[in-house]
Amino acid sequence: MKDSVGIVKTQIIDFDGDLRLESGRLLSAPIRLAYETYGQLNADNSNAILVTHAWTGDAHAAGWHSSEDRKPGWWDDMIGPGKVLDTNRYFVVCSNVIGSCGGSTGPTSTNPRTGRPYNLSFPVIMVRDMVRAQKRLIDHLGVQRLLTVIGGSMGAMQALEWGVLFPDRVRSIIPIAGTGRTSPMAIALNALARQAIFNDPMWKKGNYRPEHPPADGLALGRAIGHISFLSNASMHLKFGRRFSARDGMFDFFGQFEVERYLEYNGRSFIDRFDTNSFLYLAKALDLYDVAWNFESREEALERIQCPSLWFTFSSDWLYPPKEAEEIIQILHKLGKQAEYHLIDSDHGHDSFLVEPEKFTHFITDFLDRLAV
Amino acid sequence: MKDSVGIVKTQIIDFDGDLRLESGRLLSAPIRLAYETYGQLNADNSNAILVTHAWTGDAHAAGWHSSEDRKPGWWDDMIGPGKVLDTNRYFVVCSNVIGSCGGSTGPTSTNPRTGRPYNLSFPVIMVRDMVRAQKRLIDHLGVQRLLTVIGGSMGAMQALEWGVLFPDRVRSIIPIAGTGRTSPMAIALNALARQAIFNDPMWKKGNYRPEHPPADGLALGRAIGHISFLSNASMHLKFGRRFSARDGMFDFFGQFEVERYLEYNGRSFIDRFDTNSFLYLAKALDLYDVAWNFESREEALERIQCPSLWFTFSSDWLYPPKEAEEIIQILHKLGKQAEYHLIDSDHGHDSFLVEPEKFTHFITDFLDRLAV
Repeated sequence: MKDSVGIVKTQIIDFDGDLRLESGRLLSAPIRLAYETYGQLNADNSNAILVTHAWTGDAHAAGWHSSEDRKPGWWDDMIGPGKVLDTNRYFVVCSNVIGSCGGSTGPTSTNPRTGRPYNLSFPVIMVRDMVRAQKRLIDHLGVQRLLTVIGGSMGAMQALEWGVLFPDRVRSIIPIAGTGRTSPMAIALNALARQAIFNDPMWKKGNYRPEHPPADGLALGRAIGHISFLSNASMHLKFGRRFSARDGMFDFFGQFEVERYLEYNGRSFIDRFDTNSFLYLAKALDLYDVAWNFESREEALERIQCPSLWFTFSSDWLYPPKEAEEIIQILHKLGKQAEYHLIDSDHGHDSFLVEPEKFTHFITDFLDRLAV
Repeated sequence: MKDSVGIVKTQIIDFDGDLRLESGRLLSAPIRLAYETYGQLNADNSNAILVTHAWTGDAHAAGWHSSEDRKPGWWDDMIGPGKVLDTNRYFVVCSNVIGSCGGSTGPTSTNPRTGRPYNLSFPVIMVRDMVRAQKRLIDHLGVQRLLTVIGGSMGAMQALEWGVLFPDRVRSIIPIAGTGRTSPMAIALNALARQAIFNDPMWKKGNYRPEHPPADGLALGRAIGHISFLSNASMHLKFGRRFSARDGMFDFFGQFEVERYLEYNGRSFIDRFDTNSFLYLAKALDLYDVAWNFESREEALERIQCPSLWFTFSSDWLYPPKEAEEIIQILHKLGKQAEYHLIDSDHGHDSFLVEPEKFTHFITDFLDRLAV
C-alpha cells in the first residue's frame, strides 16, 4: 500500500439551485454529486487536478473503500503517492457525473417534484451538463483554477468541455482517447446496445424495479459496448481462436473463449451498474459534439485559453486517432498550444486504462512545466 | 433488360446418400440443394463458373424471379450478357448452401428420420460441408472442372475450400473479401448476434413457429452483423451525425439516422431469413479455419493446384486485408500462383457488393488468360 492513497470514502454533496440543461429543461435542485478527493489542496490553491471518468466509471478513482475490496479505484495506476498524479504534490478530485448511478443525481434518483424515482422522466443530458454540475463542486472546494482536467473517453470529452466552457478556470486539459464528436459508427454501436435493453421485457420502459433489472438486455448491451473498447489485436493476444475447454466444438451452444469472456463480463456488469443510467450516458455520448451551440468547431475551440495535452491509441477503433487529430489541427491553426502523442498500443480504446505506462511520462513532464 | 439474364427460376434437386459432416455426424439423405444457372454449358464442359454466396445470400444471384420483383439477384451487377461473368460465354451456377433457408437442406427442413423440422437438432456444419454438398451438384451438372469458383465473404471461404478439397475439379478460384480463418473479433460480433436471439423469449430454444419468429432478437442480431459489413467511412458518407427529422434531439427515444437505418434493415430482414439458419451459418463462419483437420495452413494450402485471384478492401474491418494477405504469403512461399489486389474502398466488408466496378476488370483479364 506504499503507493496507494489507502482507504478512501466517497463524499456526497447536495447543491441548491436547479441546473439549466442544454436541452432547455431544468434539472431540479438539489443536484447531488458523489466525489472523492486524494491529497491536500495547497495554500495558494494551485495544485488541484480534476479527474473525469468514462461511461461506466464513478467517483472512486483511487484507493480502497475497505480492506476487503478486491480491486482499487478505476485509475489507481495513475493516482497515489509518487504516481503520475502524485497525491503528495496534487489535490486530486474525481466526481461521478450526473446521469450516472454512482451517487450523483441520475435516473435512479428521486425526483424532488414527485417524490418518485425519475426513471425515463429524467431529462436527456449532454456532456456539457455534466461539466456544469462539476463546476459547482470545484467552486465548493474553493479551487479557483484547476491545474488540469484529465480523463479518458467520455472523460476526455469533459476535459475538452472544461477548456471551452470555463477557460478562466483551467490551466490545462488532458483529453485521452477522446473525440471532438462521436462518429456514426460509435452511435450505431450504442444504438444496438440500447436495442438490446429495449428488447428485454424486464426493462418495462425503464420502470423495472431495482431488484429485478433487465439483466439479459443490460448484459448484452454492455457486451456490445465492450467489443468496441477492445481491438482485434488485443482479442488475438487474449483469446485467439481457442474454444472453451468446457464445450464441444460442434455443440450448438458451445462457445469460443472470447464468447464466454464477453458473456461473463456482461453478466458481472449487471451488479454494478443501473440500466437506465447506462442508457442516459450512451445518449450523452451520442450527442457529444464540441461544436454544439457554436457556429463551428473553430468557434468552440477558439475559447480555449490553456495548453492541452492529447493522447490517442493506434488500435482504438471506437474513437480513432483521426478524430482527435482533427481537433488538434484546428487548435494549431488557431495558434493554441496543443501537444499530441499517438501511442502505439494493441489494447484498443481501453488502452488508457490498460497501458498507462506508455503515456504517463508525457503527463509528468507536462505537469512539471505547468508547475514552474 | 439487355444485359440481364431475364426471368429465372430456382431449381431444386435432391441427392441420395447421407452426407458425412466434419463433425462426424451424418446429415440424412435426401440432401436438397436449391440452385440457379445462367448461360449454357459448352460442348467441352469448360465454361462453368460456380458463384458462392455469403451468410444471408441464396441461389438467386442474377436476373428476376418475376416481372414484379423490386430487385434482381444479389450479384446481378456481375452476372449477365456482357458482364464480367458473361452469360454469353460462361455457364454460371449458384447454389444455396446447406444450413441456409433458401431451399437447401437446413434447420427448417424436415428431418427425414423424424418427419419433423430439425430446428436445433440440425447438426452444426462447417463451410467444408457446404462445399461437399455443392460438389454433388457440380457432378450432377456434368461439369468435370469448374473454370472458377468465385464468391465474397463466406463465398470466399467456399472458393478457397474448393481449391483445397477438390484441386482436380477447379481451374481457378477467386476469393473476395475473405479470410483464412475468422478472427476473435468476428467471432465476438457473431456471439453478440446469437445472444440477441437467445434473449428473445419468442425464440423458444429454436422451436418457434415460422409464423411467429423471434423478430426482435433476429432484427437486433442482423443489425449487429450489419455494422460489421459497413465502415466508419461509409457511415460518415451515408448518415454523418444527422438526427432523424422525425425525432427531437432531446427525446429519450429519438434516433440518429444511422440508428433508424439499422433498425429498418434489421426489421426487413425478418421477412426474408430464418432465425435458426442465421444461427447455424454464424456458427459455420466462426468455425472456419482453412487449416481445419490439417497439420497447418501450409499443409492445407499445399493441396491447391490452380491459380487464385484475391481481392480485399481497405476499409473492411470484419475480415481485414491482413488476414487474406497471410494466406497469399503462404501460397507464394509454396510457389503457388496467387494474384492479389487490395482495393481502396470506403464501403467496408460490403465493398464486394457495392463497388464491383473497382475490381471486375481484374477478373475479366484473369478469366481471359485462363480461357486461352
